[in-house]
Formats: sequence, structure tokens, C-alpha cells
Amino acid sequence: MAYYQSKPAAGRHFLQIPGPTNVPDRVLRAMDNPTMDHRGPDFGKLGASILAKVKQVFKTQSHVIIYPASGTGAWEAALVNTLSPGDRVLMSETGWFASLWREMAERLQLRPEFLQGDWRSGADPAAIEAYLRGDKGHEIKAVCVVHNETSTGCTSRIDEVRKAIDAAGHPALLLVDTISSLGSIDYRHDEWGVDVTVAGSQKGLMLPPGLSFNAVSAKALKASETAKLPRSFWDWKPMIAANATGFFPYTPATNMLYALDAAVDMLLEEGLDNVFHRHDRHAEATRRAVRAWGLEIQCDEPRHYSSSLTAVRVPEGNSANALRAAILEKFNMSLGNGLGQLNDRVFRIGHLGDFNDLALMGTLSGVEMGLRVAGVPHRPEGVRAAMDYLAGNA
Amino acid sequence: MAYYQSKPAAGRHFLQIPGPTNVPDRVLRAMDNPTMDHRGPDFGKLGASILAKVKQVFKTQSHVIIYPASGTGAWEAALVNTLSPGDRVLMSETGWFASLWREMAERLQLRPEFLQGDWRSGADPAAIEAYLRGDKGHEIKAVCVVHNETSTGCTSRIDEVRKAIDAAGHPALLLVDTISSLGSIDYRHDEWGVDVTVAGSQKGLMLPPGLSFNAVSAKALKASETAKLPRSFWDWKPMIAANATGFFPYTPATNMLYALDAAVDMLLEEGLDNVFHRHDRHAEATRRAVRAWGLEIQCDEPRHYSSSLTAVRVPEGNSANALRAAILEKFNMSLGNGLGQLNDRVFRIGHLGDFNDLALMGTLSGVEMGLRVAGVPHRPEGVRAAMDYLAGNA
Amino acid sequence: MAYYQSKPAAGRHFLQIPGPTNVPDRVLRAMDNPTMDHRGPDFGKLGASILAKVKQVFKTQSHVIIYPASGTGAWEAALVNTLSPGDRVLMSETGWFASLWREMAERLQLRPEFLQGDWRSGADPAAIEAYLRGDKGHEIKAVCVVHNETSTGCTSRIDEVRKAIDAAGHPALLLVDTISSLGSIDYRHDEWGVDVTVAGSQKGLMLPPGLSFNAVSAKALKASETAKLPRSFWDWKPMIAANATGFFPYTPATNMLYALDAAVDMLLEEGLDNVFHRHDRHAEATRRAVRAWGLEIQCDEPRHYSSSLTAVRVPEGNSANALRAAILEKFNMSLGNGLGQLNDRVFRIGHLGDFNDLALMGTLSGVEMGLRVAGVPHRPEGVRAAMDYLAGNA
Amino acid sequence: MAYYQSKPAAGRHFLQIPGPTNVPDRVLRAMDNPTMDHRGPDFGKLGASILAKVKQVFKTQSHVIIYPASGTGAWEAALVNTLSPGDRVLMSETGWFASLWREMAERLQLRPEFLQGDWRSGADPAAIEAYLRGDKGHEIKAVCVVHNETSTGCTSRIDEVRKAIDAAGHPALLLVDTISSLGSIDYRHDEWGVDVTVAGSQKGLMLPPGLSFNAVSAKALKASETAKLPRSFWDWKPMIAANATGFFPYTPATNMLYALDAAVDMLLEEGLDNVFHRHDRHAEATRRAVRAWGLEIQCDEPRHYSSSLTAVRVPEGNSANALRAAILEKFNMSLGNGLGQLNDRVFRIGHLGDFNDLALMGTLSGVEMGLRVAGVPHRPEGVRAAMDYLAGNA
Repeated sequence: MAYYQSKPAAGRHFLQIPGPTNVPDRVLRAMDNPTMDHRGPDFGKLGASILAKVKQVFKTQSHVIIYPASGTGAWEAALVNTLSPGDRVLMSETGWFASLWREMAERLQLRPEFLQGDWRSGADPAAIEAYLRGDKGHEIKAVCVVHNETSTGCTSRIDEVRKAIDAAGHPALLLVDTISSLGSIDYRHDEWGVDVTVAGSQKGLMLPPGLSFNAVSAKALKASETAKLPRSFWDWKPMIAANATGFFPYTPATNMLYALDAAVDMLLEEGLDNVFHRHDRHAEATRRAVRAWGLEIQCDEPRHYSSSLTAVRVPEGNSANALRAAILEKFNMSLGNGLGQLNDRVFRIGHLGDFNDLALMGTLSGVEMGLRVAGVPHRPEGVRAAMDYLAGNA
Repeated sequence: MAYYQSKPAAGRHFLQIPGPTNVPDRVLRAMDNPTMDHRGPDFGKLGASILAKVKQVFKTQSHVIIYPASGTGAWEAALVNTLSPGDRVLMSETGWFASLWREMAERLQLRPEFLQGDWRSGADPAAIEAYLRGDKGHEIKAVCVVHNETSTGCTSRIDEVRKAIDAAGHPALLLVDTISSLGSIDYRHDEWGVDVTVAGSQKGLMLPPGLSFNAVSAKALKASETAKLPRSFWDWKPMIAANATGFFPYTPATNMLYALDAAVDMLLEEGLDNVFHRHDRHAEATRRAVRAWGLEIQCDEPRHYSSSLTAVRVPEGNSANALRAAILEKFNMSLGNGLGQLNDRVFRIGHLGDFNDLALMGTLSGVEMGLRVAGVPHRPEGVRAAMDYLAGNA
Repeated sequence: MAYYQSKPAAGRHFLQIPGPTNVPDRVLRAMDNPTMDHRGPDFGKLGASILAKVKQVFKTQSHVIIYPASGTGAWEAALVNTLSPGDRVLMSETGWFASLWREMAERLQLRPEFLQGDWRSGADPAAIEAYLRGDKGHEIKAVCVVHNETSTGCTSRIDEVRKAIDAAGHPALLLVDTISSLGSIDYRHDEWGVDVTVAGSQKGLMLPPGLSFNAVSAKALKASETAKLPRSFWDWKPMIAANATGFFPYTPATNMLYALDAAVDMLLEEGLDNVFHRHDRHAEATRRAVRAWGLEIQCDEPRHYSSSLTAVRVPEGNSANALRAAILEKFNMSLGNGLGQLNDRVFRIGHLGDFNDLALMGTLSGVEMGLRVAGVPHRPEGVRAAMDYLAGNA
Repeated sequence: MAYYQSKPAAGRHFLQIPGPTNVPDRVLRAMDNPTMDHRGPDFGKLGASILAKVKQVFKTQSHVIIYPASGTGAWEAALVNTLSPGDRVLMSETGWFASLWREMAERLQLRPEFLQGDWRSGADPAAIEAYLRGDKGHEIKAVCVVHNETSTGCTSRIDEVRKAIDAAGHPALLLVDTISSLGSIDYRHDEWGVDVTVAGSQKGLMLPPGLSFNAVSAKALKASETAKLPRSFWDWKPMIAANATGFFPYTPATNMLYALDAAVDMLLEEGLDNVFHRHDRHAEATRRAVRAWGLEIQCDEPRHYSSSLTAVRVPEGNSANALRAAILEKFNMSLGNGLGQLNDRVFRIGHLGDFNDLALMGTLSGVEMGLRVAGVPHRPEGVRAAMDYLAGNA
């Protein structure tokens, strides 16, 4: 057994949490190369190449900062580079990760204001617009939205949020968390007027965790000049300065950059539109399976369905955690747990990253067999429904 | 895309030919270690350890020879070490690989005699017994049987073959090809009185191709003393001499030995009986799927069903090759082709090696969707039948 | 050529900067394993095991925090967890990295006070004691010392610094940067009464960059309860809470943890004392080579000689950077550059991490041949002097 | 420690036997990719590409056969494809490997005739010519020469052997073993009129052992049509037929082919002439070191000096094996042992494959320190002499 396994388990583990995702061999093998001198001339060439390519994934011409840190750090970076202690920020309660971001804002001495949500849809642009219209003095400095709420499987319409802010005539910055959407669901930093895009390596980018990102608009950059929150590690300024020649102000995570280089190549070779279409297709197949099982999709707003994961509600009186444990035990598959108020109420199927039809069918088969083994009431029709859709659209 | 792919393909390829099988990461990573001095003291320790462990897989106390060559070479080794030009050997026509072995025997200037078969069952012990009884002069020097006929999915009962030879009171050696059974289907070199067991690395042993094996009885060893076929590379004698201290008479395939070491550890950690039970279970689930589709299993003798692969007949008027091509194109899965007279008539599903329930379900889903896409008449009930079985026996 | 090389270069690059160091294959191969579910039960076991083992490397019974971030972040973590805006901190100007740490403190709105140094020795305990005695009101909240100054090759005596603080009867916390010493030079978090030890993965720990550490005393932990600097990503509290069961409060750098697990095993298998002795030996051999070349060691206090790197001054009128460029061009070896005021005046030889006698001799040969190629005046006796020492102490 | 080590050993082992050589990371990582379907369409493309590229390394337009077997097998293949039982073959006793080849010929029922040699030079073209002139009846069917005798470090002049055969007007085939020269020392299959070139993967080709090669002239191919030695695994005919579309007649060593693909790319990127020049340079530096030590080079014919290894004689009364053991124990370096009559009299330094100046200097330093540690009389001037040469020709 692998040294991190507690018992032998033949075959490949199905890692179907909504991230970290299954890292492709090509990416693992890129990472498994000798570490190089991060101040030498070859590094500068590699760094410049990676920084240029990664912008295509964010669909931005502006700066993309790469942190040698996991995704939570990029949230912090977005806040400390643009805001000052006591600043008001508007956040939409889309779910657990939105709530965590709010807690972070509080710990960083900001004053988050939370547009309440029921964790079953994405952010409400109308509510944002109304709230901002009420802020006559423009005290709210930033609007923070989670693009794809990994806890619920709801994707907010960032283009509509942008329009809402504009309609309110409000100058707040727009900060967006794309940790579980970038590289899986269409996202357009420049076109949608996002000021800071927060991203991580371990989902659609198909890397292990350990890198995170800020894509930064000119407006955000300007805000950083006067932002007063103390910052050093996360500071954009020395990053941007050093990045100009392909270098970093402090030691980067060299081998993760190798992996990033390989992963971005893979996304661009497949073509971003093809990547998004593939995720849409797998998400639709999954939802058809869920409905065929007679189970309920946590996201109840079809326009907000996530293409990277599907959160599924178990019927009252059943335990989602017991179901997941049975599936792990019997079928060697990890599914995402319900977070916060959804604990034990939902399980989450990740269908993002380096993924294909047959891996999806293995996944959905594991769920369907798990429902049976765990005694969760359902109709055993989900796998068939998914196959009907996939084969009908092959 | 990987450099050996002709177009980008997201996710992991499903390699469901009946070998080479999906090599576990642990084995690949073992192989990806620096090559060492094959004459140095550490090598001797490693070699001795591997040679000892591998015997457990063959269930023998006798010698196991490891060749730095692929499986076909081990066939040749079995013949040239035990036989002389012009020797008569008895072979059972179980399918394509039995036929290839016969051709090899002819090319090596032996005189193979072929017990005709219909490629739908394993070797017939009664026919062997009858034939040997007819050989009053004991001119037949060896009986060659393919344990698991990879072209048909029929597994011969080697214990019964042994009894047949004994019942005939015939001194012929028993040579058995276990290339696609060893490490997947129960096999007992010593208990079944096999004289030479032929094996390869790339199936149940979960390695890439490039190593092959002869397990050798005392009787076979004695035969080798007088066997006259010219031999050098394949000669057991210098192998056995050098192996005594863990070394090899010429340069071994060092990195493949690393891989073998890891793979045998995996088999022994899981437990051979558990490994065999796992294969039996996946084979049964597969057969249930085939029947539910309304298709025919090539092996028509249930006592000979193979646990490592299932060959499936397509209905008359349909092309198995077109089906396989569609599945490769649409679902990124390789299935085994029909060989020889079965070309285009069967496709073969490999369910051996490092494999588990969900990978099997991905595989069977791919077949079921492929049948639909390729327009092969079938009932779309196979995946469901397999899940019923697997979940009912989880 | 490797994709990160600008031209083909046969053989293995000699990465002899003072970190990142040459990552052993075993560590790279551990990292090159599938990412696992960081919330699943197997992860908890792995995490608990790693957290326990890594304490042995810090020689502490207290908490060791592991950040999914590179070393600079661990500096920041040490400050923001223990201090409040406007706090005075005492720092010793040992070189470039001490200066960077001071800059960070300023950016984080602390008030660093700098005991001036000449970059040719470690911290001066007497000066620290005198300064602290002058701080009657105990306004200085922390003393920050770089254990091994990577820019100069001077190792401060942390035990003496501890005694100096105690002798002054001062309650300041002691924060120590061991980024380029941990796992290479003896270090004792508990015995020396250090409050926060800052460490990184990419030097003596033999990993790629991307993990960093805080070892935390009870006193530091208590200070963190009242420290007012905003913090979230770096906050010890949720880390310690989650670590209790082997988990992390946000996504850890899973594959780097695999690598850490392997690397710590390697250190403990070799034995920490053997590891330190090996580094001492290579450092002494290097210094003998430098003296034999007739060049000057940047560290002019023998009690402060570093065992992980040696900074070498080039004679006036010569360019250390031109020398390094020639060595990179002609001999495929990276050496460390002079930092800050030492730019172009010194080059730095890293002899730490996964390193042995012959790799050192390749390194010193490269320097000696480089001196010749670059026209730097020297006696070609350094390699011989190093061999005399190594062979005399083999 | 690595699982194949008997005790912890920091740093990278110096594998300086004359093969297997140090496999580059790029090659190991290529090998560490999932095994693919060897009958699928992508394999055909890969196979065709590899078969085409590898011809450039042999400098041939003719067929190159790739065996999934180690080098000894390619010797056997050369003989059994071209010769018949009882055929006379002429061999030059250049050393241990020539002797082994002769033994093989005997075991294969050929009649080798051996031109005696003293193991201190390559084959003698004049002696070959004279011998062939004496064979009026042209009964000698093949002349077998080891291009680079790995046991002695003598390289035969194949161009001169060709001329000798021609001068004798003799039709014998010319079979040449290039196992330890191909990819290291200039070799021209077509231009030099070689009929069968025998090669292996684990030396200049920089792969692990496990692949071997026959480059085959039209004349050899014609001879194979009437050759009577039994053959099957080694038979060229089905190989050439299958290779036409990039496939193989039986399962190839897929992952080794990945490695070969990467290795040949590396050789061609560096440029074969540059590769040869690099080897010449390291060989010259090594010989200068040997002479400076006051030791004797086994090869006493400068025109036959090998560029891939140097065999060094220890002074009478000293043990080469004790020296090698001391170097392994103290300096973690493997050197080649003396073979046959040279056992304990010589040690062999491999300086071939993926190798560079500093690795050579580490190697030579290890020898020089080892001579001292083992008490072998010498002048400690070898490393200096090598550096003088390398730096003077940088």
C-alpha cells in the first residue's frame, strides 16, 4: 500500500472531492524535477514564460501574482493589498467559504457586511445593487463574491454582479474568489471588470495545493498604494517589480511552478472552451443522475448550477457522512463532506480538473452503489441517466 | 497532452486491454529510481530478497528465473532449456497464444502436436490423457498448456491436466504459460506439479512489460542437463548459479527489478487470496453485465471462465473493431482486439492487475455507452447488473 | 534538454547555492504521488505522524506549525502572532537576511532597532545584553536573530544569545531564523529557550521550497493571546487546534507534506548528529580550500563559521559575478551571489543538504577551475587541500 | 535511505562503473509514465518515430531492431539470425567481453576461432586480414569484433577492420558489439560496412538496462534467409515486418521505449559530435590523472584508447578490489572491477553517458582519495592534472 494508506487498496483511489483534484501524471512528473537556482538566468526565462501563459487562463492582460502559498493566502492577499483597518466590505453569504472569507476579514480588522443567503444559490446581484445604492457615502470599499461556492455547488454570475455595481454607480472594488472555478468554468477577469481575482492551484488548475494567485486590475493596484493594512509577504509591489524579469522577490515554490507550467500547457492545448464544455457536460450528467436517484440538488437555482461540483442532499433522517464513510470503505472513493450548516446533510461530488467520461461513470457508480450499501432511499437509475446523456452527446 | 498521445485527452486513459495493465504509481515510482551497480554488494541483497519473495507468487520452493526480456522470451526459455531438436511436444489449441506457442516450437525445430480446440474453452484433460496413453514409447517430451488463454478468456484447469498426465503414466514435462494469470488467478507451481511455469511482468504482476519468468521444477532442471537445443541467453544454469548470491550472469533490467520488488510487496500486502478473490469478483460482475447486454461470452465453459479478462462476442453483422475504435475515440478506453480467427468477432475486457470496483464500473460504462454509440444491438442493462452484483457483495 | 534549460547540458547540474539544495530522489518521488483527500481519515494519520516526527528535527516538545508557504512567510508568522503594532523589536545586523527581516518588521508596523554589524560575524550576545539592560521599561518585546546568515556564512551562537537575554533579566521573546541551518547545523529549540523558531523547507530539510515552519514555545503561545497585529492565514491558534488530530485548518500543501515525511525519515535514519558532523566536515574542507586558494572567507570569526555555506571574497578588482557566470557557463554549476553590500564582492558555496564528499569535490573543482577560467588570482591548491582533509578524516 | 541501500548514505551515489550509467532525470521521468496499449494507434506513431530517430544514432539507413531484452540478448540475436550450426566465426580476443561472446558462440553450436590478444589493445586488423586470407574456402562466415572492450578500455578501429576484410577479399559478415560505445564514441554502421551492430541501452544511450539492438545491413538480412540456427524471439523477420507500421510482433518494453525516445532526443539535441567530443575530453582528462598518479593505463595502444572508460592497473602487490571496496565504503562511489584475468589487477572508471566536468572531478577526486585511504602508492597529482586539462580546454 502507499505509505499514506492505512490498508491495502487495489487500484487507483477515486479522489472526487471538489478539490484537490486528481493531478495528471504529466503535472506530477513535471513537479518531480530537480529544483533549480531561482536566481539564475534559466529561471528568469521560465518565470517569464509561466507568468505570460497563466494570464490567458485568467483572461487578463493585467498582472497575475503567484504566491508560494495555498489558496487561503490569496484571499488574505486580496484584502491586505487593497484595504485599510476598519474598512467596510460587502460580502454575499453564498455558503461556507463565503463565511470563512468574512471571518478572515474580521480577523484582519475589516468590517464585513453580509448579504444573507440560504446557501442554495449564488450571489444576488439585485441585493448587491440595492445595498450599494444605500451606501451614499461610498464607505464600502470592496464587494467580495465567491464565484463558485465549493460548499454548495452554486456559481455566482460575476458579469451580473459587475453590472449591479455599475448600476449603483458605486466605486467599490470587486474581489472574486475563483478557487474552485478557474480552469473549469468560464471566467473573464478583464471583461467582467474584476479588480482582484483570487485563485488556487489544486482544483481546475490540476496541481497539488501550494500555489495561489491574485489577478489584479489597474484600479486594485491603485488602491494598494493607499491601503493601510500591514503587509509584507503578500505585498503585490515587490512581486510585480521582480516579475518584470521573470523572478520573484523571495524564494518561489520552484517545483510547483514546473507543475503549473505543465498544467497551463495542458489547458491551452485542450483549449479553454473545450475544457469548460467538458465540465458543463459532466455537471449535467451528474445532475441527471441525482434527479434520477430521486435526490435533491443543493443548488436550487438552475442558472447558478456549478460545473465543477454538485452538492447533493440526502433525504431527511439519513446521514450524508455515513454514506461517505461507506463509499470510502467499500468503494475507495473520497467525496466532499457537508460544511457548516450542511454537515451531514449533503455530500459533494467533485467533477472538475483532469477528468473524463469514464472516471465520471466510475464516480457515479460508486455513489449509486454507496446509496444502496448505506441504505439511503433512492431509485437505482442515476447511472443509467448519466450514461444516456453522455452517450447521447458523445 | 502526453508526448505519446496524438491529441489532448483529459483524464486518465482506461487501459482495459488484458495486459499490459495499469501500472500502480508505487511501481512506476520504484522504477523511477537511479540505476545501481548490478555487481555491487547492495545489489546482491536486493536481488536475493526479490528472488525469495517472487517464489511466493508462483507458490514454489524451487527456482524462479527472472529474464530481462518480455514474456515471449520466457516461452522460448522453457522450450530451449528442456528439449532437443525434433522432440515431440503436445499442445492444446486453446486460442491464439497457444497457436503462437506452437509456431515458436516449430521455429525452434521441435515437433508440436496440437489437440484441436474451438477457442471457447480451456485445455481438455481427457483428450490430453487419451493422447498420452497413445504415446506408448513416451516420445512426447512435454505437454504445453496455456493456463489463461488471453485471446479467449478461458482458463485451463492445470490441476486436472496434471492428473491426466499422471493417469496416463506419462513422463512428459508439464510446461504452463501463466502470462495473463499469475498474480490474478490462483496458481500453484509446486502443488500442481508443473515443471516450467512461464510468466511475464505486464499483467497481474502490475509492471510494465520487460521482465519474464520461468519457475523450474527439479525434473525440468534434470531435463535441462541433456536438452540439446542451443541456448545461451536463456540458459538456466548460469542464472541459477549467479542467483545463489542474488546476482545475475549478465546485466539484469535493474529498474524493472525495483518495480518487481514493489509490485510483489503490494500483492503480498493485499494477500494473494484477496487478490484472487478481487479478480473473481470483477470477472463475475463483468459476465453479468455481458449477459444483461444480451451479448455472448466467448468462453462457453463456466468452469473455465477467466478471472482476468472476458472476451465478448458481438452479434453477427457487427464489427468488434469498429466498436473498439468508437470506444477509444469517444471514451478514451483501450479494449483488447480479437486475435486470429476472432478478429473483429470479439472484443476483450481486461479486468486484471491493479484494479478496483469503480474502475471496473467506468470500464463497463464505457462498453455500454460504446455499444450505443457504435450501434451494436444490446440491452442497456449491463452496468446495472454489474452494480447489483458488486453492491450486493460489497 | 530539460524544459527549463536554455541549452543542452550533459550531466547533472551542480546546484551549489546555499539553498534551495539538491533534493534527493527519494523526496522528489514521495512528492510525485497522487494528492489525497486532506480531510479523510488517512490524512489525519499521516499528518499526526509528520507533526510528531518534525519536532525531533527542531528538538522541541512544543508545537511546530507547518505553513503551506515558503520561508519568508514563516518570518511574518513569527512576528504577527506575537507582536502588536508599534512594538519595539531588537535585531542584530548579521547580513542581508537580517536586513530583510528588519524591513519586514517595518512594513508590518513594528519598530525594529538594529544592532549594527559588519556582516562578517554572527550576532553579538554582549551587545544584545547591553542593549536590553538599557531597556529598563521592557518595551522591547522581541529579540530577532538569524541563526545562520545565508548572505555571509556566519552562524550566531543562539545559546549565548539566550544567556545574554537572561543575564539582562529581560522578558523579550527570542525569535530565531533557522532557514539555512535547520537540519544542517545543530539547533535546539527547547534547550536554548527559543520562543519562535522560523524555518523553511528548501535547505537542510532537502525539500523544494514551499513549506515553512514556526516552532513555538509556551511563552510565545501566551504572547499570541494578546498580540494585536492582524492575522489570519498565519494564525497559530486554528493551526494548533486542527493539528491535534493531524489535520490543518485550510488546505495544506499535501504533496510537500509527502516530501517532508520522506525527508525527515532520511534525516532521522542518518541520525541528526551524523548529519551535523557531515556538514561540519564539508565546511572545514571548503574553508581549507579557500585558504589554499589564497582567498578570504567572509566570516572572520571562526566561532561563527557556518557549516552550511561558505561565502568567499574575491580579491579587489575582481568580479564575483563574472566568476559565477563563468562557472555557470563553463561548468554547469550555480553558486550563490553576493547580496546587498556584498554584491559582486563575494560568491557563496552551498555545502548543505543532501550532499557528500565527491559532490563537494566536484563543487570545489568547479570553483578552482572557474577561478582560472575567469582570471581571478589564486593558488591552484584548494582542491588538494580539501582532499587532504577529507581523505585524512575519511 | 533508498530501499536498495544497506545503510544511509547522504548525497547522490557516484555510479562510475562503465555502465549501467547515470540515467538522466528526463529519461527516468519518461519511463515513469503510464504504460499504453502497444496495439493502439498512438503506439504506432510513437514506435515509428522512435525507430526512425534511433537510426541516426547508429548512423544507418537500414533496419534497427529493438529487443525488449538486455544487451547479451542482442549478441545472441546477431549470431542466430545470420549463422548456422557448425559455422566458423573469427573473433578477436580483446578482453573479457570478447571471451564471453566466444563462449556464447560455442554454446550456440558455432565454431569460434580466436585471434589471441593481450587485453591491452583493440582488435588487430592485420591479423584479421592474414587469417582471412588463409581461409581460402571462405568457410568463416562472420568476423566478430567488440568495438569498445569494456573490460580493458580499448577501442578497436572498426574502419580498419572493414578494410582488412576487404583487403582479404573475404565475404564474411562483420558483426560488431557497440554496447559500451554507441552514443559515446563515434560509430558509423553504414559507412564502415558493418553487417550487424549489437548495442544495449544502459551505457551511452543513458537508459537503464532492458533494451538491446541489432542494426542490420542488407547483406546480413540476406544471410538471415538461409541461416539455420533455430530462432524465434530473436528473429529479425517478424520484427521488421511489424516495425514497418511502428509496431512489434510481441509485447515490447513500452516504458523503456518512452525512455529511449527521451534519451535519443537528448543525444540529438546536444549533437552527436558534441557528445563524442565531450567523451573524448573526459577520457583525456582521466588519462592525464592516471599518469599523474603514476599508475598505468591498461590500454597500451594510444590509438585504441577508449573514450567511455579507462581501466587502470594497480601496482603489483596491491589489490584493486580492496581499493574499490574502500572507495565504495568511504566515498559512496562504484567503480568497475577487473574481469577475468584482470580481476584485482585493474579498476575501471566509467566516464560515459550523462556526464559532465564536475561529475568527472568528483569521480577522480574519489579515486585519488581512495588511493590514499587504501594505501596504494601514488602521487596525489591526478586531480590537479585533470583540472589543468579541463580548465585549459573549457
